[in-house]
Amino acid sequence: MNKVEEFIRTRENLNEIVMDFAKKDIKRFFNLDTSVYKEGALDSKTKEMLGLIASLVLRCDDCISYHLNQCHKAGVTSEELEELFSVGLIVGGSIVIPHLRRAISFWQELIR
Amino acid sequence: MNKVEEFIRTRENLNEIVMDFAKKDIKRFFNLDTSVYKEGALDSKTKEMLGLIASLVLRCDDCISYHLNQCHKAGVTSEELEELFSVGLIVGGSIVIPHLRRAISFWQELIR
Amino acid sequence: MNKVEEFIRTRENLNEIVMDFAKKDIKRFFNLDTSVYKEGALDSKTKEMLGLIASLVLRCDDCISYHLNQCHKAGVTSEELEELFSVGLIVGGSIVIPHLRRAISFWQELIR
Amino acid sequence: MNKVEEFIRTRENLNEIVMDFAKKDIKRFFNLDTSVYKEGALDSKTKEMLGLIASLVLRCDDCISYHLNQCHKAGVTSEELEELFSVGLIVGGSIVIPHLRRAISFWQELIR
Amino acid sequence: MNKVEEFIRTRENLNEIVMDFAKKDIKRFFNLDTSVYKEGALDSKTKEMLGLIASLVLRCDDCISYHLNQCHKAGVTSEELEELFSVGLIVGGSIVIPHLRRAISFWQELIR
Amino acid sequence: MNKVEEFIRTRENLNEIVMDFAKKDIKRFFNLDTSVYKEGALDSKTKEMLGLIASLVLRCDDCISYHLNQCHKAGVTSEELEELFSVGLIVGGSIVIPHLRRAISFWQELIR
Repeated sequence: MNKVEEFIRTRENLNEIVMDFAKKDIKRFFNLDTSVYKEGALDSKTKEMLGLIASLVLRCDDCISYHLNQCHKAGVTSEELEELFSVGLIVGGSIVIPHLRRAISFWQELIR
Repeated sequence: MNKVEEFIRTRENLNEIVMDFAKKDIKRFFNLDTSVYKEGALDSKTKEMLGLIASLVLRCDDCISYHLNQCHKAGVTSEELEELFSVGLIVGGSIVIPHLRRAISFWQELIR
Repeated sequence: MNKVEEFIRTRENLNEIVMDFAKKDIKRFFNLDTSVYKEGALDSKTKEMLGLIASLVLRCDDCISYHLNQCHKAGVTSEELEELFSVGLIVGGSIVIPHLRRAISFWQELIR
Repeated sequence: MNKVEEFIRTRENLNEIVMDFAKKDIKRFFNLDTSVYKEGALDSKTKEMLGLIASLVLRCDDCISYHLNQCHKAGVTSEELEELFSVGLIVGGSIVIPHLRRAISFWQELIR
Repeated sequence: MNKVEEFIRTRENLNEIVMDFAKKDIKRFFNLDTSVYKEGALDSKTKEMLGLIASLVLRCDDCISYHLNQCHKAGVTSEELEELFSVGLIVGGSIVIPHLRRAISFWQELIR
Repeated sequence: MNKVEEFIRTRENLNEIVMDFAKKDIKRFFNLDTSVYKEGALDSKTKEMLGLIASLVLRCDDCISYHLNQCHKAGVTSEELEELFSVGLIVGGSIVIPHLRRAISFWQELIR
């Protein structure tokens, strides 16, 4: 099982634990969290890129991995991703670099 | 002078003070900060939206105002912006709301 | 008009601008933001204190003012607030102090 | 040794290393960090919940685990915790979710 | 009254309000906050620069103004400050720029 | 291979992956990130301490480890480090403690 599969499986297992524990409001939040990335005035690809850069500058590895996977499915190319990372790096500063390293490494597994 | 013009003028005045004070490295950073938003694999409009959502979740009013202005010039519509704000709000949480309020108010002045 | 009234009025005006601009998802977020503070297994007073300390350590003045007002209505005493602030100050560090100063000053207007 | 015991043991070992290294000011900070959670105008249970939500929105896993353990000892129920998490999730946004997942998983081990 | 004097006066007034409100733990925190900047293995000048860059990357204008004033008294030069700002800008990213602008503007008033 | 060597090796491997992926702007950022720590009006030792405390209050373990290593090479003593940590702890609050624990543990390996 590679890094990507492991990430997805762990995430699913933990999400089940959350859903068992959560009541109405947390569940509504999770629904909303799905809803905002749906195709609309902006296409899904753009929205996933928005979710990715937000996760990057807030320095959340799990969120970054999740949105990288979504970006990959939505057809984001490595060239586009590299430019997104440039913007995120400039906005967030060198403190973002350790997350960038792991993100690029995760992306390489996704596209190979 | 309205809120938008005032923002732009204050920003320019302060940038002059920075440029007078700054030496090589800070100046190189400012150049880089311009360079990453240039048209490339991603168009300027997408890049400005990336800069905007990053500023929103990091809760920086001045950065938000700046990128709102850039988004406006790049042709972002109110419908697109509303969806970008939805993503930013979900990612960043209710702590983002005061910045969202000011952002929408700034945008209304931009588009009227 | 004192600081408290001014805060409440500005907040209401800006919320109207947000509601005019917002579509379904942002509105659902705002509803959820009301829902989580409702009396349940935890009483409203405790929930407002939770909202307040979260706002304090995340250093959001508007959010702090809002929850101070709610705490006041829910019957939080100055002694209780002082202890909540002690916890917030230790967790968040001296970077919290400027917000603490403004929070105490706002509270003094609320209770006089 | 389960996750809870492992967390407590690692924490104790590292705290010893800190105390060997620390001089007066760091030690005073640690004392203060104990003092603010003591029963006062607010009871310990409330204070531990305040410490927990502050740790959650600041996204510090170790701090969350520590306060979950303290909340458990202070008699916080799963129902109360679920509501605290709702508030923390709304305030802090989806960026909090990975920490929430680990927190709920840690809590399940605490209460079983 | 210029910007520097106004900052110092407002800060003193608000600190009085805090001290009237605060009990033992908050007061002990404030004492500790003074203590850590005292001459020791590191001189005061270095410690004030540490406090300044920490305030800069955490983006707290009041904290920045305070430490700029302390750095000025401790003999930090404009050349040294410019290099400190370069480090802070790289670490914290472009999100730091609005605070940098205000910081340089405040410094110019301090040294004239 | 001890913790320090492992950290350095992992970092080098990941940096290679970044450099393979990065184009001009990210590479310029990395160059700038090296440049700002070079001897100037402030000596390298002071600059590395600035980088360290910025990393500490922003709570980035990898950045902390990197700057600890650089501080060690630049001749920072344990006494000086302890005082830097005091400032960082007060500014950043108890949320910094888990990172402090790991930092001291890393430092002990560096100096033994």
